[in-house]
Amino acid sequence: MRGSGSFWPDTAGVASLIAFASIFHVLGMLWLMFSGILMLPVLIDWVTEEPFAEGFFEVALVSAAFAGIVVLASRKRGPFVLRLREAFLLTTLSWVSLPAFAALPLMTYGISFTDGYFEAMSGLTTTGSTVLSGLDDMDPAILFWRALLQWIGGIGIIVMAIVLLPFLRVGGMQLFRTESSDQFDKAVPRASQLTGWIVAIYFALTFACVVAFMAFGMEAFDALCHAMATLSTGGYSTHDASFGHFREPGLHWAATLFMIAGALPFAAYIGVLHGRFDAMLRDTQIRGFIALVLAICTLMTLWLWASGEHDFSEAARLVTFNIVSVITTTGFASTDYQLWGPFAFAVFFVVMFIGGCAGSTSGAIKIYRFQIIAKMIAAQVRRLTSVHRVNVMTYAGKPVAADVPVSILAFVAIFLATIGLGTLLLAATGLDLLTALTASATAITNVGPGLGDVIGPAGNFSGLPDTAKWLLSAAMLLGRLELFTVLVLFNPSFWRG
Amino acid sequence: MRGSGSFWPDTAGVASLIAFASIFHVLGMLWLMFSGILMLPVLIDWVTEEPFAEGFFEVALVSAAFAGIVVLASRKRGPFVLRLREAFLLTTLSWVSLPAFAALPLMTYGISFTDGYFEAMSGLTTTGSTVLSGLDDMDPAILFWRALLQWIGGIGIIVMAIVLLPFLRVGGMQLFRTESSDQFDKAVPRASQLTGWIVAIYFALTFACVVAFMAFGMEAFDALCHAMATLSTGGYSTHDASFGHFREPGLHWAATLFMIAGALPFAAYIGVLHGRFDAMLRDTQIRGFIALVLAICTLMTLWLWASGEHDFSEAARLVTFNIVSVITTTGFASTDYQLWGPFAFAVFFVVMFIGGCAGSTSGAIKIYRFQIIAKMIAAQVRRLTSVHRVNVMTYAGKPVAADVPVSILAFVAIFLATIGLGTLLLAATGLDLLTALTASATAITNVGPGLGDVIGPAGNFSGLPDTAKWLLSAAMLLGRLELFTVLVLFNPSFWRG
Repeated sequence: MRGSGSFWPDTAGVASLIAFASIFHVLGMLWLMFSGILMLPVLIDWVTEEPFAEGFFEVALVSAAFAGIVVLASRKRGPFVLRLREAFLLTTLSWVSLPAFAALPLMTYGISFTDGYFEAMSGLTTTGSTVLSGLDDMDPAILFWRALLQWIGGIGIIVMAIVLLPFLRVGGMQLFRTESSDQFDKAVPRASQLTGWIVAIYFALTFACVVAFMAFGMEAFDALCHAMATLSTGGYSTHDASFGHFREPGLHWAATLFMIAGALPFAAYIGVLHGRFDAMLRDTQIRGFIALVLAICTLMTLWLWASGEHDFSEAARLVTFNIVSVITTTGFASTDYQLWGPFAFAVFFVVMFIGGCAGSTSGAIKIYRFQIIAKMIAAQVRRLTSVHRVNVMTYAGKPVAADVPVSILAFVAIFLATIGLGTLLLAATGLDLLTALTASATAITNVGPGLGDVIGPAGNFSGLPDTAKWLLSAAMLLGRLELFTVLVLFNPSFWRG
Repeated sequence: MRGSGSFWPDTAGVASLIAFASIFHVLGMLWLMFSGILMLPVLIDWVTEEPFAEGFFEVALVSAAFAGIVVLASRKRGPFVLRLREAFLLTTLSWVSLPAFAALPLMTYGISFTDGYFEAMSGLTTTGSTVLSGLDDMDPAILFWRALLQWIGGIGIIVMAIVLLPFLRVGGMQLFRTESSDQFDKAVPRASQLTGWIVAIYFALTFACVVAFMAFGMEAFDALCHAMATLSTGGYSTHDASFGHFREPGLHWAATLFMIAGALPFAAYIGVLHGRFDAMLRDTQIRGFIALVLAICTLMTLWLWASGEHDFSEAARLVTFNIVSVITTTGFASTDYQLWGPFAFAVFFVVMFIGGCAGSTSGAIKIYRFQIIAKMIAAQVRRLTSVHRVNVMTYAGKPVAADVPVSILAFVAIFLATIGLGTLLLAATGLDLLTALTASATAITNVGPGLGDVIGPAGNFSGLPDTAKWLLSAAMLLGRLELFTVLVLFNPSFWRG
């Protein structure tokens, strides 16, 4: 008999157990850091002279203890090497487990675990769909916690998109590989260096946003929370009326500017800091994104102005804020744009799918994928008439590797298929087609609000059945991790070899 | 000075003028044939002892005269060679011009040109969206004319899909090229031979369908019209209640069978007639299509049965008929399935995009594209974990050429983008989002009915603004000609060289 296999793990089995231990070691450290972050809302309640945020304090202690045990139990002697497979698993496990920790303090305020997990997942994925209402009178600890989750989620996404995804070759992200090497572990030193720059830029932009908001008359606490939700293109507000609570036009324009700042590739900012001042102006993604935003906003402004209900500057401000909010997948609303009629309704539906630049905090399909697809379609049309011409596709001045277009299109196909499947499953829980379709779309694109009476910009996700909330939590996760990062875990061959 | 260019056409200019003359020569002959077909409704009115169909008679004479003049004026001495570019242009011009001729007799019944063109385009593209109501009391000439347009459109599509599209390499259709040669003109002799077989099979299946319908108690005229609309997966009925007018269960099952027959690849039928009896059973597309239809129908039947409002056999019949009707892009309705609730609503929306097999009369994205995309996604997921593995994709046992996946994905991208653009434009004419979205989808997929109160299975397109009707006519054409066949005409390089 071959022996060992059935009762005792063979050598390979032991090796993979050790790899799992490594993953839980890192995960435990992440949870430990997160426990520390759980103390920040306590601090906020102390600063704002609110009653002591007992719930956050207790959960922080308990989860720190739990995380500490995991870290100790999973430590091992050899050096920890983060390989490709571990990176995939770690990414998904982080985004699945953190919302559970984040939901616990909310439960001490009488919010159910389902609602808490949904709210935390919506925060950490920078989606911004909410089940909470009565925000204006809520404990600042909760409001700050929501904003903080989005801010942390935002930085997590940028690091993932710049450091990890190009190596995972997810959805065409290999286009943005800065190293020529295929070896993931060799790039780790450079990765931690990059991460430092990203965090610094993210901090600086958030600080600038706080200053701008306060300069236009926002109170310090609101300015901090909204700045965190703006730069992360998350969209959580401290008011039920979202950004519509604020009347000062300057605030709306400032928020528009910083939502765009959050949707630009952070690698370009790093370039500027390294003296390549034209990095922003020459970036193909940025140019395409800005051109598209300008085109849509100009068209819609003229259209809304022509309707005669707003003067030109008001029309421009309303359109630009809300279109930029959806296109950057932030999800703030300064007004219920659904009241603008069916055309606006359809525009906001379509715009939901676009998204900002790769390597930013924004979600959805993203500009570079549209640019590559447009090039592919043009090439197809050219090829239909001339049989033997060979076209080498270029992007940003460099030839595009053969696997990129296929990779991008496979991404878009599964992106849309997931929205379709989500629509079916949500409809099976009893939602009407419009709610089911736009809920599925807004979750997977990480925008935030849907369309219609229930979950529209003036609505709320609280009335949805629990099953729908869990489905949407899963959808937000899938969208945020660019689908393939999660799907690969379900491939049996991933667990072999 | 270079001379000639500015005032007199140079040699190339003369050559291209001659090529245009050739195209109009063929087009004129097509119109002449179509004028002959315009006489058939006159015959029907004579057979059914209705008043003489004056309108059809007059239009037939006038259009025959017009077509005759075009044929004579454009004749030339040399042999006519149908090259790739001419094939593209001719295809689009045929489908744009024939509805205009087909609409003229309808105008003599007081139908506007817009409505007539929409109805005829919907017929010739085998879509089945209608602006007419009061069908039960309508002149048989019109009812027969609508069915005949679908039947002619159906045969046109099969011939186009089998003979032309594989050479035009539109949307991955090169997968179905039967010849190894790249040269289109060399394949023409074989093409006309294939066309003979296709017409024979189409006639035989239609005849079988008429017999089946009559055997289950349908009157001869209804049986003929419905058989033509069934095999062409068109969906025009002679009754406002569509197939729901007929109560006999056997009729519904027979129609289900023949809708499926119309959605199977006609090349497989030719194979069977040539003695390859396993051609149907072994065809990858057919197997995938049947498996998918069975899976969806079984699930939905169980779901509807569980709702408790229908016994099992009734649930099975209602589900199978209506799902098959939408999935084959026929568009008959035996009941208002929107009343089954939001889940059914969502299922019917998603199913709309699927379509039948390539080389059949059905529209939409089609099975083989989903099969290739599924293989691509699986390959992507495999590739994410192992860097250096090379996978050769196969389809139906043969390796897939490198340009096929890209071609298919470019097709799906532009297909969905066109639906998105259509939604926006329709919403701009004042339609609500649900109507705009499902009208755009149902036109481009050539299904027929949309969803919602206005254009749902119990509704009608007559209430839409004229602009919307023209937009939808264009959308039906684009969808029917697989988009690229039309789009290539807008590429400047198409007109050069």
